[in-house]
Amino acid sequence: MTPGTQTVLPVVTGAMYIAGDAVFGDAETFPVEAPAAGGTLEPTFHRAGSALVGRAAELAEAAFEAFRAAPTEQRARLLELAADEIETVGGAAADRAHLETGLPLPRLTGEVARTTGQLRLFAATLREGTWNGARIDHALPDRVPARRPDVRQRRIPLGPVAVFAASNFPLAFSVAGGDTASALAAGCPVVVKGHEAHPGTSEIIAAAITRAVAASGLPAGVFSMVFADGPTVGVELVRHPAIAAVGFTGSRAAGLALVAAAASRPVPIPVYAEMSAVNPVFLLPGRLSEAASDLGAAFVGSLTLGAGQFCTNPGIVVGVDGPDLDRFIAAARDAVTASAPAPMLTSRIAASYANGVARLAAHPATEVLARAADPEPGSWPGCWGSAALVATTAEEFLAARDLHDEVFGAASVIVRVASSDELIDVARAMEGQLTATVHATDGDAALASSLLPVLERKAGRILFNGWPTGVEVVPSMVHGGPFPATSDSRTTSVGTLAMERFLRPVAYQDVPDALLPTAVRESNPDGLLRLVDGSYTKN
Amino acid sequence: MTPGTQTVLPVVTGAMYIAGDAVFGDAETFPVEAPAAGGTLEPTFHRAGSALVGRAAELAEAAFEAFRAAPTEQRARLLELAADEIETVGGAAADRAHLETGLPLPRLTGEVARTTGQLRLFAATLREGTWNGARIDHALPDRVPARRPDVRQRRIPLGPVAVFAASNFPLAFSVAGGDTASALAAGCPVVVKGHEAHPGTSEIIAAAITRAVAASGLPAGVFSMVFADGPTVGVELVRHPAIAAVGFTGSRAAGLALVAAAASRPVPIPVYAEMSAVNPVFLLPGRLSEAASDLGAAFVGSLTLGAGQFCTNPGIVVGVDGPDLDRFIAAARDAVTASAPAPMLTSRIAASYANGVARLAAHPATEVLARAADPEPGSWPGCWGSAALVATTAEEFLAARDLHDEVFGAASVIVRVASSDELIDVARAMEGQLTATVHATDGDAALASSLLPVLERKAGRILFNGWPTGVEVVPSMVHGGPFPATSDSRTTSVGTLAMERFLRPVAYQDVPDALLPTAVRESNPDGLLRLVDGSYTKN
Repeated sequence: MTPGTQTVLPVVTGAMYIAGDAVFGDAETFPVEAPAAGGTLEPTFHRAGSALVGRAAELAEAAFEAFRAAPTEQRARLLELAADEIETVGGAAADRAHLETGLPLPRLTGEVARTTGQLRLFAATLREGTWNGARIDHALPDRVPARRPDVRQRRIPLGPVAVFAASNFPLAFSVAGGDTASALAAGCPVVVKGHEAHPGTSEIIAAAITRAVAASGLPAGVFSMVFADGPTVGVELVRHPAIAAVGFTGSRAAGLALVAAAASRPVPIPVYAEMSAVNPVFLLPGRLSEAASDLGAAFVGSLTLGAGQFCTNPGIVVGVDGPDLDRFIAAARDAVTASAPAPMLTSRIAASYANGVARLAAHPATEVLARAADPEPGSWPGCWGSAALVATTAEEFLAARDLHDEVFGAASVIVRVASSDELIDVARAMEGQLTATVHATDGDAALASSLLPVLERKAGRILFNGWPTGVEVVPSMVHGGPFPATSDSRTTSVGTLAMERFLRPVAYQDVPDALLPTAVRESNPDGLLRLVDGSYTKN
Repeated sequence: MTPGTQTVLPVVTGAMYIAGDAVFGDAETFPVEAPAAGGTLEPTFHRAGSALVGRAAELAEAAFEAFRAAPTEQRARLLELAADEIETVGGAAADRAHLETGLPLPRLTGEVARTTGQLRLFAATLREGTWNGARIDHALPDRVPARRPDVRQRRIPLGPVAVFAASNFPLAFSVAGGDTASALAAGCPVVVKGHEAHPGTSEIIAAAITRAVAASGLPAGVFSMVFADGPTVGVELVRHPAIAAVGFTGSRAAGLALVAAAASRPVPIPVYAEMSAVNPVFLLPGRLSEAASDLGAAFVGSLTLGAGQFCTNPGIVVGVDGPDLDRFIAAARDAVTASAPAPMLTSRIAASYANGVARLAAHPATEVLARAADPEPGSWPGCWGSAALVATTAEEFLAARDLHDEVFGAASVIVRVASSDELIDVARAMEGQLTATVHATDGDAALASSLLPVLERKAGRILFNGWPTGVEVVPSMVHGGPFPATSDSRTTSVGTLAMERFLRPVAYQDVPDALLPTAVRESNPDGLLRLVDGSYTKN
């Protein structure tokens, strides 16, 4: 061992998993950083070249017909088995993720629970069955001038899905995360490109899913996890003829590159890229006057959570200028100044954050309100970041589009507006967002109801009197939103609706009952809620 | 009047409609052909320039907030009023369409009924309400470590929709067609680019919708209909910042141009383009042996319907070689030979069809089976087309990709396969299709059940023992399919699911009940079927 490296957990060997087999990459190595402790981690990981990644895609396609034809119950069991296996290795996975990401252990333990919870939620959703979208319109044999045929509809999976794992949720949005869970639930085999910020965690989880696939009796090609260079081999995966859809969480540049690659294929495919957001928070006057200091402190709690590395991190706060906003700012400034520096996920993310903060601080339209202390001497400066807060006016904010861009990390811009009207103008000027938050009390109802329709057009989730960090995995969740928050606002990547991204409808006209899929057979053997002749029924 | 022109119906003046106003185009004129009778039709129509078309888009955006905020009942009434108004002018519209398209009058009268029927079906769907996608997950106040918030979801409209009308359905897929009806139902204002093959029909229908909008009390900007040069001003409409989605029916080249324009916008938008299909028909041996001659004659009936100008026209027939297929071919050949030439929609479509037939006939891999008689001397040769039938082998078909391309019109390729396995190989080699048809009897069940999963991956609609022309407007219909049949296989352009193309989900977290949209209020004032805490209920 060289100085500065860490011992590794025994289960981490440097492997990828391709259709049931542990495989070592045949291309270049990549370094595995230990952001909190400094140095790099063992063992050595290698990337896969084109041929290996192509093999994973081909084996996914080879498994697809059997996977989609398997009973729904078997698919639900696969998800539950995966949850069980992940639970078994959850402690080791969280420990390894802690080394690889620098995120606090309790947060990572929570992520294990979220990961298993969402797999089980999709299993329940599969059994409930409405995802089939079953519809039946019976024939009208006596219609003139011609008989109306019998028409039935259900949804089928698109085909193998390439999932590009996120850096910032090493469990819940990575190898077994929301994209993988929803694609498998839909009946789509998955090829994950594991994120290089946490390859050991990825290996542990990939091994767990591989065991679950084997135990489920489904073909091994249903799941693979590879490491690959994103701009070259990753893009090749998106362009592989066997791949039918893509899930991605990451930067806007990388997401748009995958969208472009998918669109330029001979057969274009959908890409669900969750890219960037600044998640504006609107402080309405009534609520601000009531609780300015508390809100300021709570805001910084959300801002600095996970070193600000949440997709839903509050990067813009908008409030009407005056003594109440000053109190909010004073409390936020104190909290930022008191906040400790924290390790960021990678040295690259930390460097990008430092650049972003420097850009905000040097911007002619901003005033620096607070900077947390610099990282301690002796800590690994390459990966640590500290919170930052700047202020600007509505006028400046509306003129300076670069102040609207995400700085990934614990930096936020407070926009002082002169009036409620200007607050709405600022909302209207926003790009698409994952979330928009309103702090309001009963006395703010008139302004809130004017603001709400504006926010509906800007965000996938609107929340009142809370903070956007933290996304509940429930059927009604929307983690999505208008461009550039995502590449496809019609969907969500969290919650059970996420399955629908990987399904498409097929109609069956006068197909004999014995040949019909069970979802649309006359006897309704699966007991589904179906739209029959215009009415929803379980008959 | 110059010789060869026709008198026009009094209601046709050459106008477009922009947000309630009859407006005359400010750009170049375009000729209006009379395909059946020959010559051109009056009055003179002008295209709109960029500014006029941009004004329609801006007025659509200006109307959007009021439109989407209006009660669902008011939106349903708009659709019913439009149906009523179209019924009133239906006779005149069908007469004018007959002059402009050469399609038979009974077919056009049927289209009026389909147009009004689908508007009323969407009104009923709006009132039924499940389109809201309402979901509620109540808070768990006592959850540890933190309270789970209350989360609710509903769908909202995307924004103004640009609709590019089809040439081949001058009523049911044009100004008030499926795209317009589904976008208005979703709460999206519509700007239609009317098709230049039937501008008078478009004017009559646009005037009817304009009257319906006025009677509904909704803002006039909810509907506009313009004529514009597709490759220039049409593309500008797609790129207009006010436009949020696009519906299109037409050629692959034009559709792909709109997809590319939409993708290259600063804010990309979805395009639902229905482009091209050859709609393969598979003749299974049992059924073929039973009814070869009847099938051959019925096939040609579907092939020549509307001069073959259906999106779902059967352009490929696949059967196992032998005496039964020979009988099918003999009957089809007789029917094609006996078929009368028919006017096509435009001279450009007729020329393209003639080129396509010449290409098929001269192809080294084909044998010409039958050509209908050439158009009568004295008819307008520029617009008339006659049916054509060629044959090839599976081997040739699999090698010659150009035989897979659509020839828009009454031309079809019969593919002789050597075995059932080869029949499935041919199915696997197909591109994406709107439809796939199987002719089978009980004795064909084994082959049919092997073929069915292959066809599910190729087509939006699978039909047994019928012909693909004719698309029922029922909730379970899918008129869509994998690329290149459409640009987005996850949807349909016919049937009530078409509305979902223009909606996206929004989540509301801890939003006070009084501020929530009615679809997700606790009391369920609209009586919707909602997914509440994991179960569907109307409570």
